[in-house]
Amino acid sequence: MAMDFTAETATDAVVDSFAPTPDPRLRELLTGLVRHLHDFVREAEPTRAEWERAIAFLTEAGHRCDEARQEFILLSDVLGVSMLVEAINDRKEPAATDSTVLGPFHMVESPARALGDTLDLVGAGEPCLISGRVVSVDGTALPGATLDVWQADDQGFYDVQQPGKQPPGNGRGLFTADAEGRFWFRSCVPSPYPIPTDGPVGTLLEATGRHPYRPAHIHFIVSAAGHLPVTTHVFVAGGDHLESDAVFAVRRSLVQEFAEVDDPALAAASGLANPFRRALFDIVLQPVTA
Amino acid sequence: MAMDFTAETATDAVVDSFAPTPDPRLRELLTGLVRHLHDFVREAEPTRAEWERAIAFLTEAGHRCDEARQEFILLSDVLGVSMLVEAINDRKEPAATDSTVLGPFHMVESPARALGDTLDLVGAGEPCLISGRVVSVDGTALPGATLDVWQADDQGFYDVQQPGKQPPGNGRGLFTADAEGRFWFRSCVPSPYPIPTDGPVGTLLEATGRHPYRPAHIHFIVSAAGHLPVTTHVFVAGGDHLESDAVFAVRRSLVQEFAEVDDPALAAASGLANPFRRALFDIVLQPVTA
Repeated sequence: MAMDFTAETATDAVVDSFAPTPDPRLRELLTGLVRHLHDFVREAEPTRAEWERAIAFLTEAGHRCDEARQEFILLSDVLGVSMLVEAINDRKEPAATDSTVLGPFHMVESPARALGDTLDLVGAGEPCLISGRVVSVDGTALPGATLDVWQADDQGFYDVQQPGKQPPGNGRGLFTADAEGRFWFRSCVPSPYPIPTDGPVGTLLEATGRHPYRPAHIHFIVSAAGHLPVTTHVFVAGGDHLESDAVFAVRRSLVQEFAEVDDPALAAASGLANPFRRALFDIVLQPVTA
Repeated sequence: MAMDFTAETATDAVVDSFAPTPDPRLRELLTGLVRHLHDFVREAEPTRAEWERAIAFLTEAGHRCDEARQEFILLSDVLGVSMLVEAINDRKEPAATDSTVLGPFHMVESPARALGDTLDLVGAGEPCLISGRVVSVDGTALPGATLDVWQADDQGFYDVQQPGKQPPGNGRGLFTADAEGRFWFRSCVPSPYPIPTDGPVGTLLEATGRHPYRPAHIHFIVSAAGHLPVTTHVFVAGGDHLESDAVFAVRRSLVQEFAEVDDPALAAASGLANPFRRALFDIVLQPVTA
Protein backbone atom coordinates (compact mmCIF):
# COMPACT_ATOMS: atom_id res chain seq x y z
CA MET A 1 0.00 0.00 0.00
CA ALA A 2 1.03 3.55 -0.48
CA MET A 3 -0.49 6.95 0.17
CA ASP A 4 -3.12 8.60 -2.01
CA PHE A 5 -5.72 5.90 -1.98
CA THR A 6 -8.34 6.69 -4.66
CA ALA A 7 -11.67 5.19 -5.72
CA GLU A 8 -9.70 3.37 -8.44
CA THR A 9 -6.88 1.98 -6.27
CA ALA A 10 -8.93 1.43 -3.12
CA THR A 11 -9.93 -2.16 -3.63
CA ASP A 12 -6.52 -3.55 -4.54
CA ALA A 13 -4.97 -1.71 -1.60
CA VAL A 14 -7.39 -3.28 0.88
CA VAL A 15 -7.21 -6.72 -0.73
CA ASP A 16 -3.41 -6.52 -0.59
CA SER A 17 -3.58 -5.67 3.10
CA PHE A 18 -5.24 -9.03 3.69
CA ALA A 19 -2.61 -10.95 1.70
CA PRO A 20 -0.71 -12.08 4.84
CA THR A 21 -3.82 -13.79 6.27
CA PRO A 22 -2.61 -17.26 7.33
CA ASP A 23 -5.97 -19.01 6.91
CA PRO A 24 -6.60 -19.26 3.15
CA ARG A 25 -10.39 -19.51 3.57
CA LEU A 26 -10.52 -16.33 5.69
CA ARG A 27 -8.38 -14.59 3.08
CA GLU A 28 -10.73 -15.74 0.33
CA LEU A 29 -13.84 -14.58 2.21
CA LEU A 30 -12.37 -11.17 3.04
CA THR A 31 -11.07 -10.66 -0.50
CA GLY A 32 -14.51 -11.41 -1.91
CA LEU A 33 -16.25 -9.27 0.69
CA VAL A 34 -14.01 -6.27 0.00
CA ARG A 35 -14.33 -6.59 -3.80
CA HIS A 36 -18.14 -6.83 -3.72
CA LEU A 37 -18.60 -4.21 -1.00
CA HIS A 38 -16.38 -1.74 -2.85
CA ASP A 39 -18.20 -2.49 -6.12
CA PHE A 40 -21.45 -1.64 -4.35
CA VAL A 41 -20.04 1.60 -2.93
CA ARG A 42 -18.59 2.69 -6.28
CA GLU A 43 -21.88 1.93 -8.01
CA ALA A 44 -24.23 3.40 -5.36
CA GLU A 45 -22.01 6.40 -4.58
CA PRO A 46 -23.36 6.88 -1.05
CA THR A 47 -23.12 10.37 0.33
CA ARG A 48 -21.37 10.83 3.66
CA ALA A 49 -24.80 11.28 5.27
CA GLU A 50 -25.94 7.95 3.79
CA TRP A 51 -22.77 6.28 5.09
CA GLU A 52 -23.47 7.75 8.55
CA ARG A 53 -27.04 6.42 8.36
CA ALA A 54 -25.71 2.95 7.51
CA ILE A 55 -23.32 3.08 10.49
CA ALA A 56 -26.20 4.19 12.73
CA PHE A 57 -28.42 1.39 11.39
CA LEU A 58 -25.82 -1.28 12.16
CA THR A 59 -25.23 0.22 15.59
CA GLU A 60 -28.96 0.21 16.41
CA ALA A 61 -29.16 -3.38 15.19
CA GLY A 62 -26.26 -4.35 17.46
CA HIS A 63 -27.81 -2.63 20.45
CA ARG A 64 -31.03 -4.59 19.83
CA CYS A 65 -29.26 -7.95 20.15
CA ASP A 66 -29.41 -9.78 23.48
CA GLU A 67 -30.19 -13.27 24.74
CA ALA A 68 -33.76 -12.99 23.46
CA ARG A 69 -33.32 -10.99 20.26
CA GLN A 70 -31.08 -11.33 17.21
CA GLU A 71 -31.56 -8.31 14.97
CA PHE A 72 -28.70 -9.26 12.60
CA ILE A 73 -30.34 -12.61 11.87
CA LEU A 74 -33.57 -10.70 11.18
CA LEU A 75 -31.63 -8.41 8.84
CA SER A 76 -30.02 -11.37 7.07
CA ASP A 77 -33.49 -12.94 6.83
CA VAL A 78 -35.32 -9.94 5.33
CA LEU A 79 -32.49 -9.38 2.82
CA GLY A 80 -32.86 -12.99 1.69
CA VAL A 81 -29.28 -13.76 2.70
CA SER A 82 -30.22 -16.46 5.22
CA MET A 83 -32.32 -18.30 2.65
CA LEU A 84 -29.62 -17.88 0.00
CA VAL A 85 -27.05 -19.44 2.35
CA GLU A 86 -29.51 -22.29 2.93
CA ALA A 87 -30.10 -22.75 -0.80
CA ILE A 88 -26.35 -22.82 -1.47
CA ASN A 89 -25.68 -25.36 1.26
CA ASP A 90 -28.64 -27.51 0.37
CA ARG A 91 -26.77 -30.02 -1.78
CA LYS A 92 -28.57 -33.10 -0.74
CA GLU A 93 -30.40 -35.79 -2.58
CA PRO A 94 -33.80 -34.56 -3.77
CA ALA A 95 -35.53 -37.16 -1.59
CA ALA A 96 -34.20 -35.62 1.61
CA THR A 97 -36.30 -33.04 3.46
CA ASP A 98 -35.63 -29.48 2.28
CA SER A 99 -33.99 -27.12 4.70
CA THR A 100 -34.98 -23.56 5.47
CA VAL A 101 -33.77 -20.71 7.66
CA LEU A 102 -32.91 -21.10 11.34
CA GLY A 103 -34.56 -17.79 12.26
CA PRO A 104 -33.68 -15.61 15.23
CA PHE A 105 -35.50 -17.47 18.02
CA HIS A 106 -33.40 -20.61 18.46
CA MET A 107 -31.44 -19.05 21.30
CA VAL A 108 -32.45 -21.15 24.29
CA GLU A 109 -32.14 -24.90 24.75
CA SER A 110 -35.33 -26.80 24.15
CA PRO A 111 -36.40 -28.83 27.20
CA ALA A 112 -36.32 -32.61 26.75
CA ARG A 113 -39.86 -33.94 26.46
CA ALA A 114 -41.33 -37.44 26.13
CA LEU A 115 -43.10 -38.50 22.95
CA GLY A 116 -46.74 -37.47 23.24
CA ASP A 117 -46.00 -34.47 25.47
CA THR A 118 -47.33 -31.07 24.50
CA LEU A 119 -45.33 -27.97 23.63
CA ASP A 120 -48.29 -25.81 24.62
CA LEU A 121 -47.71 -25.27 28.34
CA VAL A 122 -50.44 -22.63 28.46
CA GLY A 123 -53.22 -24.45 26.64
CA ALA A 124 -54.51 -21.32 24.96
CA GLY A 125 -54.28 -22.41 21.35
CA GLU A 126 -56.14 -24.84 19.12
CA PRO A 127 -54.75 -28.28 20.01
CA CYS A 128 -53.10 -30.39 17.36
CA LEU A 129 -51.22 -33.64 17.04
CA ILE A 130 -48.01 -33.68 15.05
CA SER A 131 -46.51 -36.99 14.11
CA GLY A 132 -44.44 -38.84 11.58
CA ARG A 133 -41.24 -40.79 11.14
CA VAL A 134 -37.61 -39.88 10.77
CA VAL A 135 -36.17 -42.00 7.97
CA SER A 136 -33.10 -42.18 5.78
CA VAL A 137 -33.43 -41.47 2.05
CA ASP A 138 -33.88 -45.21 1.38
CA GLY A 139 -36.80 -45.34 3.81
CA THR A 140 -34.90 -47.00 6.65
CA ALA A 141 -36.18 -45.86 10.02
CA LEU A 142 -33.76 -43.81 12.13
CA PRO A 143 -34.43 -44.87 15.73
CA GLY A 144 -33.18 -42.44 18.35
CA ALA A 145 -33.23 -39.47 15.96
CA THR A 146 -33.58 -36.21 17.88
CA LEU A 147 -36.10 -33.51 16.96
CA ASP A 148 -35.49 -30.03 18.34
CA VAL A 149 -38.83 -28.26 17.86
CA TRP A 150 -39.82 -24.64 18.54
CA GLN A 151 -42.76 -22.48 17.59
CA ALA A 152 -44.62 -19.31 18.46
CA ASP A 153 -47.80 -19.52 20.49
CA ASP A 154 -51.28 -19.02 19.08
CA GLN A 155 -50.77 -15.24 19.35
CA GLY A 156 -47.54 -15.40 17.31
CA PHE A 157 -45.01 -14.90 20.12
CA TYR A 158 -42.10 -17.09 21.21
CA ASP A 159 -41.53 -17.72 24.90
CA VAL A 160 -38.36 -15.59 24.92
CA GLN A 161 -40.34 -12.61 23.62
CA GLN A 162 -42.73 -12.70 26.58
CA PRO A 163 -40.64 -13.70 29.58
CA GLY A 164 -43.18 -12.62 32.18
CA LYS A 165 -46.18 -13.95 30.31
CA GLN A 166 -45.16 -17.32 28.84
CA PRO A 167 -43.44 -19.97 30.93
CA PRO A 168 -39.86 -20.69 29.78
CA GLY A 169 -39.84 -23.53 27.28
CA ASN A 170 -43.40 -22.86 26.10
CA GLY A 171 -43.56 -23.91 22.46
CA ARG A 172 -40.24 -25.80 22.67
CA GLY A 173 -39.35 -29.45 23.00
CA LEU A 174 -36.48 -31.85 22.37
CA PHE A 175 -37.87 -35.24 21.38
CA THR A 176 -36.20 -38.58 20.70
CA ALA A 177 -37.77 -40.77 18.03
CA ASP A 178 -38.74 -44.29 19.10
CA ALA A 179 -37.29 -47.61 17.91
CA GLU A 180 -39.11 -47.25 14.58
CA GLY A 181 -38.04 -43.64 14.08
CA ARG A 182 -41.52 -42.43 14.98
CA PHE A 183 -42.25 -39.15 16.69
CA TRP A 184 -45.47 -37.62 17.99
CA PHE A 185 -46.25 -34.69 20.17
CA ARG A 186 -49.04 -32.23 20.84
CA SER A 187 -49.02 -28.50 20.42
CA CYS A 188 -51.28 -25.65 19.39
CA VAL A 189 -51.75 -24.81 15.72
CA PRO A 190 -49.22 -22.05 15.02
CA SER A 191 -50.34 -18.63 13.74
CA PRO A 192 -48.84 -16.25 11.23
CA TYR A 193 -46.95 -13.50 13.03
CA PRO A 194 -44.94 -10.38 12.26
CA ILE A 195 -41.22 -10.53 12.83
CA PRO A 196 -40.29 -8.02 15.56
CA THR A 197 -40.81 -4.56 14.08
CA ASP A 198 -39.72 -2.39 17.00
CA GLY A 199 -36.07 -2.35 15.91
CA PRO A 200 -34.18 -1.03 12.89
CA VAL A 201 -35.20 -3.99 10.70
CA GLY A 202 -38.83 -3.10 11.37
CA THR A 203 -38.06 0.51 10.47
CA LEU A 204 -36.52 -0.73 7.22
CA LEU A 205 -39.59 -2.82 6.34
CA GLU A 206 -41.86 0.13 7.15
CA ALA A 207 -39.80 2.51 5.00
CA THR A 208 -39.89 0.08 2.08
CA GLY A 209 -43.59 -0.73 2.22
CA ARG A 210 -42.95 -4.39 3.02
CA HIS A 211 -45.17 -6.29 5.45
CA PRO A 212 -43.41 -8.08 8.31
CA TYR A 213 -45.50 -11.28 8.37
CA ARG A 214 -44.38 -14.86 8.32
CA PRO A 215 -46.80 -17.67 7.44
CA ALA A 216 -47.64 -20.04 10.31
CA HIS A 217 -44.89 -22.62 10.88
CA ILE A 218 -43.14 -24.90 13.33
CA HIS A 219 -39.31 -25.03 13.42
CA PHE A 220 -37.38 -28.31 13.45
CA ILE A 221 -33.75 -29.30 13.65
CA VAL A 222 -33.65 -33.06 13.14
CA SER A 223 -30.46 -35.09 13.68
CA ALA A 224 -29.64 -38.79 13.53
CA ALA A 225 -26.41 -40.79 13.71
CA GLY A 226 -24.62 -41.11 10.38
CA HIS A 227 -26.85 -38.50 8.72
CA LEU A 228 -26.71 -34.79 7.89
CA PRO A 229 -28.97 -32.85 10.25
CA VAL A 230 -31.70 -30.70 8.71
CA THR A 231 -32.87 -27.27 9.89
CA THR A 232 -36.36 -26.77 8.54
CA HIS A 233 -39.95 -25.63 9.13
CA VAL A 234 -43.32 -27.20 8.66
CA PHE A 235 -45.72 -24.60 7.25
CA VAL A 236 -49.49 -24.73 7.75
CA ALA A 237 -51.21 -25.25 4.40
CA GLY A 238 -53.86 -22.71 3.45
CA GLY A 239 -52.55 -20.03 5.80
CA ASP A 240 -51.85 -16.40 5.00
CA HIS A 241 -48.53 -15.06 3.69
CA LEU A 242 -47.27 -18.35 2.22
CA GLU A 243 -46.59 -16.46 -1.02
CA SER A 244 -44.99 -13.41 0.61
CA ASP A 245 -43.03 -14.63 3.63
CA ALA A 246 -41.07 -11.64 5.01
CA VAL A 247 -37.96 -13.83 5.21
CA PHE A 248 -38.34 -15.74 1.89
CA ALA A 249 -38.21 -19.10 3.67
CA VAL A 250 -41.20 -21.00 2.28
CA ARG A 251 -40.57 -24.13 0.25
CA ARG A 252 -43.55 -25.83 -1.29
CA SER A 253 -42.35 -29.23 -0.08
CA LEU A 254 -42.57 -28.06 3.53
CA VAL A 255 -46.23 -26.99 3.45
CA GLN A 256 -48.39 -29.56 5.27
CA GLU A 257 -52.09 -29.92 6.00
CA PHE A 258 -53.15 -29.43 9.59
CA ALA A 259 -56.49 -31.09 8.85
CA GLU A 260 -59.35 -31.48 11.30
CA VAL A 261 -59.59 -35.14 12.27
CA ASP A 262 -62.56 -36.95 13.81
CA ASP A 263 -60.94 -39.96 15.51
CA PRO A 264 -62.17 -40.52 19.06
CA ALA A 265 -59.75 -43.39 19.71
CA LEU A 266 -56.67 -41.46 18.59
CA ALA A 267 -57.93 -38.38 20.43
CA ALA A 268 -58.25 -40.35 23.66
CA ALA A 269 -54.89 -42.06 23.18
CA SER A 270 -53.26 -38.67 22.53
CA GLY A 271 -54.93 -36.80 25.36
CA LEU A 272 -56.87 -34.53 23.01
CA ALA A 273 -60.53 -33.63 22.75
CA ASN A 274 -62.16 -34.98 19.60
CA PRO A 275 -62.21 -33.64 16.87
CA PHE A 276 -58.68 -32.22 16.67
CA ARG A 277 -56.19 -30.89 14.12
CA ARG A 278 -53.52 -33.23 12.88
CA ALA A 279 -50.32 -32.86 10.82
CA LEU A 280 -48.64 -36.01 9.63
CA PHE A 281 -45.33 -35.99 7.81
CA ASP A 282 -41.95 -37.67 7.64
CA ILE A 283 -38.51 -36.17 7.94
CA VAL A 284 -36.04 -37.67 5.46
CA LEU A 285 -32.32 -37.35 6.24
CA GLN A 286 -29.41 -37.92 3.94
CA PRO A 287 -26.57 -40.23 5.04
CA VAL A 288 -23.17 -38.68 5.56
CA THR A 289 -20.97 -39.89 2.73
CA ALA A 290 -17.25 -40.35 3.18
CA MET B 1 -42.60 -13.55 -4.95
CA ALA B 2 -43.59 -17.13 -4.75
CA MET B 3 -42.48 -20.17 -2.83
CA ASP B 4 -39.38 -22.22 -3.60
CA PHE B 5 -36.81 -19.50 -3.48
CA THR B 6 -33.54 -20.84 -4.94
CA ALA B 7 -29.98 -19.52 -5.30
CA GLU B 8 -30.94 -18.54 -8.84
CA THR B 9 -34.24 -16.76 -8.07
CA ALA B 10 -33.24 -15.35 -4.71
CA THR B 11 -31.98 -11.97 -5.79
CA ASP B 12 -34.88 -10.98 -8.01
CA ALA B 13 -37.33 -12.07 -5.31
CA VAL B 14 -35.71 -9.82 -2.71
CA VAL B 15 -35.24 -6.92 -5.13
CA ASP B 16 -38.92 -7.23 -6.11
CA SER B 17 -39.90 -7.10 -2.45
CA PHE B 18 -38.35 -3.62 -2.27
CA ALA B 19 -40.17 -2.40 -5.38
CA PRO B 20 -42.91 -0.58 -3.38
CA THR B 21 -40.30 1.58 -1.55
CA PRO B 22 -41.64 5.15 -1.85
CA ASP B 23 -38.23 6.85 -1.65
CA PRO B 24 -36.48 6.16 -4.99
CA ARG B 25 -32.99 6.66 -3.52
CA LEU B 26 -33.65 4.16 -0.72
CA ARG B 27 -34.97 1.70 -3.31
CA GLU B 28 -31.85 2.21 -5.43
CA LEU B 29 -29.51 1.69 -2.46
CA LEU B 30 -31.30 -1.46 -1.27
CA THR B 31 -31.47 -2.91 -4.77
CA GLY B 32 -27.74 -2.41 -5.22
CA LEU B 33 -26.97 -3.74 -1.75
CA VAL B 34 -29.03 -6.89 -2.29
CA ARG B 35 -27.55 -7.55 -5.75
CA HIS B 36 -23.93 -7.14 -4.60
CA LEU B 37 -24.44 -8.95 -1.29
CA HIS B 38 -26.09 -11.91 -3.01
CA ASP B 39 -23.33 -11.95 -5.65
CA PHE B 40 -20.80 -12.18 -2.83
CA VAL B 41 -22.71 -14.99 -1.10
CA ARG B 42 -23.12 -16.96 -4.35
CA GLU B 43 -19.43 -16.55 -5.14
CA ALA B 44 -18.06 -17.19 -1.62
CA GLU B 45 -20.53 -19.98 -0.81
CA PRO B 46 -20.33 -19.49 2.96
CA THR B 47 -21.13 -22.52 5.07
CA ARG B 48 -23.83 -22.17 7.70
CA ALA B 49 -21.07 -22.04 10.33
CA GLU B 50 -19.40 -19.16 8.46
CA TRP B 51 -22.74 -17.34 8.27
CA GLU B 52 -23.17 -17.84 12.02
CA ARG B 53 -19.66 -16.48 12.59
CA ALA B 54 -20.53 -13.39 10.53
CA ILE B 55 -23.72 -12.83 12.57
CA ALA B 56 -21.70 -13.21 15.79
CA PHE B 57 -19.06 -10.77 14.49
CA LEU B 58 -21.66 -8.09 13.73
CA THR B 59 -23.32 -8.69 17.10
CA GLU B 60 -20.02 -8.32 18.96
CA ALA B 61 -19.31 -5.15 16.98
CA GLY B 62 -22.72 -3.75 17.94
CA HIS B 63 -22.22 -4.57 21.59
CA ARG B 64 -18.89 -2.73 21.50
CA CYS B 65 -20.52 0.53 20.39
CA ASP B 66 -21.34 3.14 23.01
CA GLU B 67 -20.84 6.87 23.50
CA ALA B 68 -17.06 6.43 23.49
CA ARG B 69 -16.58 3.66 20.93
CA GLN B 70 -17.77 3.11 17.37
CA GLU B 71 -16.76 -0.37 16.23
CA PHE B 72 -18.74 -0.17 12.95
CA ILE B 73 -16.82 2.95 11.91
CA LEU B 74 -13.62 1.05 12.74
CA LEU B 75 -14.84 -1.84 10.61
CA SER B 76 -15.71 0.50 7.73
CA ASP B 77 -12.28 2.10 8.16
CA VAL B 78 -10.21 -1.10 8.10
CA LEU B 79 -12.15 -2.42 5.09
CA GLY B 80 -11.31 0.79 3.22
CA VAL B 81 -15.00 1.65 2.88
CA SER B 82 -14.77 4.94 4.77
CA MET B 83 -11.91 6.13 2.60
CA LEU B 84 -13.68 4.94 -0.55
CA VAL B 85 -16.78 6.95 0.41
CA GLU B 86 -14.50 9.96 0.96
CA ALA B 87 -12.79 9.47 -2.40
CA ILE B 88 -16.15 9.21 -4.17
CA ASN B 89 -17.51 12.32 -2.52
CA ASP B 90 -14.33 14.29 -3.00
CA ARG B 91 -15.38 16.06 -6.18
CA LYS B 92 -13.86 19.37 -5.50
CA GLU B 93 -11.47 21.58 -7.34
CA PRO B 94 -7.92 20.23 -7.07
CA ALA B 95 -6.84 23.38 -5.22
CA ALA B 96 -9.15 22.65 -2.28
CA THR B 97 -7.81 20.73 0.72
CA ASP B 98 -8.20 16.99 0.36
CA SER B 99 -10.61 15.25 2.69
CA THR B 100 -10.04 12.05 4.60
CA VAL B 101 -11.96 9.81 6.99
CA LEU B 102 -13.90 11.08 9.99
CA GLY B 103 -12.73 8.20 12.19
CA PRO B 104 -14.57 6.82 15.22
CA PHE B 105 -13.61 9.43 17.85
CA HIS B 106 -15.63 12.47 16.80
CA MET B 107 -18.43 11.60 19.20
CA VAL B 108 -18.30 14.45 21.72
CA GLU B 109 -18.60 18.16 21.07
CA SER B 110 -15.30 19.99 20.98
CA PRO B 111 -15.14 22.79 23.60
CA ALA B 112 -14.94 26.31 22.18
CA ARG B 113 -11.43 27.69 22.64
CA ALA B 114 -9.80 31.04 21.89
CA LEU B 115 -7.12 31.31 19.23
CA GLY B 116 -3.79 30.54 20.87
CA ASP B 117 -5.27 28.18 23.48
CA THR B 118 -3.84 24.73 23.87
CA LEU B 119 -5.58 21.41 23.25
CA ASP B 120 -3.16 19.73 25.62
CA LEU B 121 -4.85 20.14 29.00
CA VAL B 122 -2.40 17.73 30.61
CA GLY B 123 0.88 19.14 29.31
CA ALA B 124 2.50 15.76 29.01
CA GLY B 125 3.44 15.84 25.33
CA GLU B 126 5.97 17.72 23.23
CA PRO B 127 4.49 21.20 22.72
CA CYS B 128 3.80 22.49 19.25
CA LEU B 129 2.25 25.47 17.55
CA ILE B 130 -0.20 24.86 14.74
CA SER B 131 -1.22 27.74 12.55
CA GLY B 132 -2.34 28.77 9.11
CA ARG B 133 -5.18 30.39 7.26
CA VAL B 134 -8.55 29.27 6.04
CA VAL B 135 -8.99 30.53 2.49
CA SER B 136 -11.22 30.02 -0.50
CA VAL B 137 -9.79 28.39 -3.64
CA ASP B 138 -9.03 31.86 -5.07
CA GLY B 139 -6.98 32.73 -2.00
CA THR B 140 -9.60 34.97 -0.39
CA ALA B 141 -9.46 34.80 3.39
CA LEU B 142 -12.48 33.25 5.12
CA PRO B 143 -12.91 35.22 8.33
CA GLY B 144 -14.98 33.49 10.99
CA ALA B 145 -14.32 30.03 9.57
CA THR B 146 -14.71 27.39 12.28
CA LEU B 147 -12.14 24.66 12.91
CA ASP B 148 -13.25 21.63 14.89
CA VAL B 149 -10.00 19.95 15.92
CA TRP B 150 -9.40 16.68 17.77
CA GLN B 151 -6.41 14.47 18.35
CA ALA B 152 -5.02 11.71 20.54
CA ASP B 153 -2.59 12.57 23.32
CA ASP B 154 1.15 11.86 23.20
CA GLN B 155 0.41 8.25 24.26
CA GLY B 156 -2.03 7.76 21.39
CA PHE B 157 -5.32 7.89 23.31
CA TYR B 158 -8.33 10.15 22.87
CA ASP B 159 -9.99 11.69 25.93
CA VAL B 160 -13.08 9.50 25.51
CA GLN B 161 -10.91 6.37 25.70
CA GLN B 162 -9.55 7.32 29.12
CA PRO B 163 -12.43 8.98 30.96
CA GLY B 164 -10.83 8.70 34.39
CA LYS B 165 -7.34 9.63 33.25
CA GLN B 166 -7.74 12.46 30.74
CA PRO B 167 -9.92 15.50 31.45
CA PRO B 168 -12.94 15.74 29.12
CA GLY B 169 -12.10 17.83 26.07
CA ASN B 170 -8.38 17.04 26.25
CA GLY B 171 -7.08 17.13 22.69
CA ARG B 172 -10.22 18.85 21.40
CA GLY B 173 -11.04 22.43 20.48
CA LEU B 174 -13.47 24.44 18.41
CA PHE B 175 -11.72 27.54 17.05
CA THR B 176 -12.97 30.51 15.05
CA ALA B 177 -10.59 32.00 12.52
CA ASP B 178 -9.84 35.73 12.88
CA ALA B 179 -10.75 38.56 10.49
CA GLU B 180 -8.00 37.44 8.09
CA GLY B 181 -9.02 33.78 8.24
CA ARG B 182 -6.02 33.01 10.45
CA PHE B 183 -5.97 30.30 13.08
CA TRP B 184 -3.36 29.30 15.64
CA PHE B 185 -3.40 27.05 18.64
CA ARG B 186 -1.06 24.98 20.74
CA SER B 187 -1.10 21.26 21.31
CA CYS B 188 1.28 18.36 21.78
CA VAL B 189 2.82 16.62 18.79
CA PRO B 190 0.52 13.66 18.08
CA SER B 191 1.86 10.09 18.13
CA PRO B 192 1.10 7.08 15.98
CA TYR B 193 -1.34 4.81 17.78
CA PRO B 194 -3.12 1.51 17.27
CA ILE B 195 -6.84 1.64 16.63
CA PRO B 196 -8.66 -0.13 19.49
CA THR B 197 -7.85 -3.82 19.19
CA ASP B 198 -9.85 -5.22 22.10
CA GLY B 199 -13.00 -5.70 20.00
CA PRO B 200 -13.95 -7.82 16.98
CA VAL B 201 -12.18 -5.48 14.54
CA GLY B 202 -8.95 -6.01 16.49
CA THR B 203 -9.57 -9.76 16.34
CA LEU B 204 -9.99 -9.47 12.57
CA LEU B 205 -6.73 -7.55 12.16
CA GLU B 206 -4.93 -10.09 14.36
CA ALA B 207 -6.34 -13.03 12.37
CA THR B 208 -5.27 -11.43 9.10
CA GLY B 209 -1.74 -10.46 10.14
CA ARG B 210 -2.45 -6.74 9.75
CA HIS B 211 -0.99 -4.19 12.16
CA PRO B 212 -3.48 -1.78 13.79
CA TYR B 213 -1.38 1.39 13.65
CA ARG B 214 -2.29 4.79 12.33
CA PRO B 215 0.37 7.38 11.54
CA ALA B 216 0.38 10.46 13.81
CA HIS B 217 -2.30 12.96 12.83
CA ILE B 218 -4.64 15.73 13.96
CA HIS B 219 -8.31 15.70 12.84
CA PHE B 220 -10.02 18.78 11.43
CA ILE B 221 -13.51 19.64 10.25
CA VAL B 222 -13.30 23.13 8.77
CA SER B 223 -16.43 25.08 7.77
CA ALA B 224 -17.02 28.57 6.41
CA ALA B 225 -20.07 30.40 5.09
CA GLY B 226 -20.73 29.76 1.41
CA HIS B 227 -18.21 26.92 1.23
CA LEU B 228 -18.23 23.13 1.40
CA PRO B 229 -16.87 21.97 4.75
CA VAL B 230 -13.89 19.61 4.73
CA THR B 231 -13.26 16.66 7.06
CA THR B 232 -9.56 15.99 7.01
CA HIS B 233 -6.36 15.19 8.92
CA VAL B 234 -2.93 16.74 9.12
CA PHE B 235 -0.33 13.97 9.24
CA VAL B 236 3.10 14.41 10.81
CA ALA B 237 5.81 14.11 8.12
CA GLY B 238 8.50 11.53 8.72
CA GLY B 239 6.44 9.49 11.16
CA ASP B 240 5.89 5.75 11.16
CA HIS B 241 3.06 3.97 9.29
CA LEU B 242 2.45 6.71 6.71
CA GLU B 243 2.72 4.00 4.03
CA SER B 244 0.57 1.43 5.84
CA ASP B 245 -2.16 3.31 7.69
CA ALA B 246 -4.56 0.70 9.12
CA VAL B 247 -7.50 2.73 7.80
CA PHE B 248 -6.06 3.73 4.38
CA ALA B 249 -6.60 7.43 5.10
CA VAL B 250 -3.25 9.03 4.24
CA ARG B 251 -3.10 11.48 1.37
CA ARG B 252 0.27 12.86 0.43
CA SER B 253 -1.12 16.41 0.31
CA LEU B 254 -2.06 16.21 3.99
CA VAL B 255 1.40 15.32 5.29
CA GLN B 256 3.00 18.37 6.94
CA GLU B 257 6.31 19.07 8.64
CA PHE B 258 6.21 19.57 12.39
CA ALA B 259 9.68 21.14 12.30
CA GLU B 260 11.65 22.27 15.31
CA VAL B 261 11.73 26.06 15.33
CA ASP B 262 14.14 28.33 17.19
CA ASP B 263 12.19 31.59 17.48
CA PRO B 264 12.29 33.11 20.98
CA ALA B 265 9.89 35.93 20.09
CA LEU B 266 7.23 33.65 18.62
CA ALA B 267 7.76 31.22 21.48
CA ALA B 268 7.16 33.95 24.04
CA ALA B 269 4.16 35.32 22.13
CA SER B 270 2.68 31.81 21.92
CA GLY B 271 3.33 30.80 25.50
CA LEU B 272 5.82 28.10 24.52
CA ALA B 273 9.37 27.33 25.63
CA ASN B 274 11.93 27.90 22.89
CA PRO B 275 12.73 25.90 20.74
CA PHE B 276 9.39 24.34 19.84
CA ARG B 277 7.77 22.28 17.08
CA ARG B 278 5.69 24.10 14.54
CA ALA B 279 3.27 23.06 11.78
CA LEU B 280 2.16 25.74 9.35
CA PHE B 281 -0.44 25.10 6.67
CA ASP B 282 -3.53 26.54 5.07
CA ILE B 283 -6.97 25.01 4.69
CA VAL B 284 -8.51 25.71 1.28
CA LEU B 285 -12.28 25.44 0.94
CA GLN B 286 -14.34 25.26 -2.20
CA PRO B 287 -17.29 27.64 -2.66
CA VAL B 288 -20.74 26.12 -2.82
CA THR B 289 -21.94 26.44 -6.40
CA ALA B 290 -25.57 26.79 -7.26
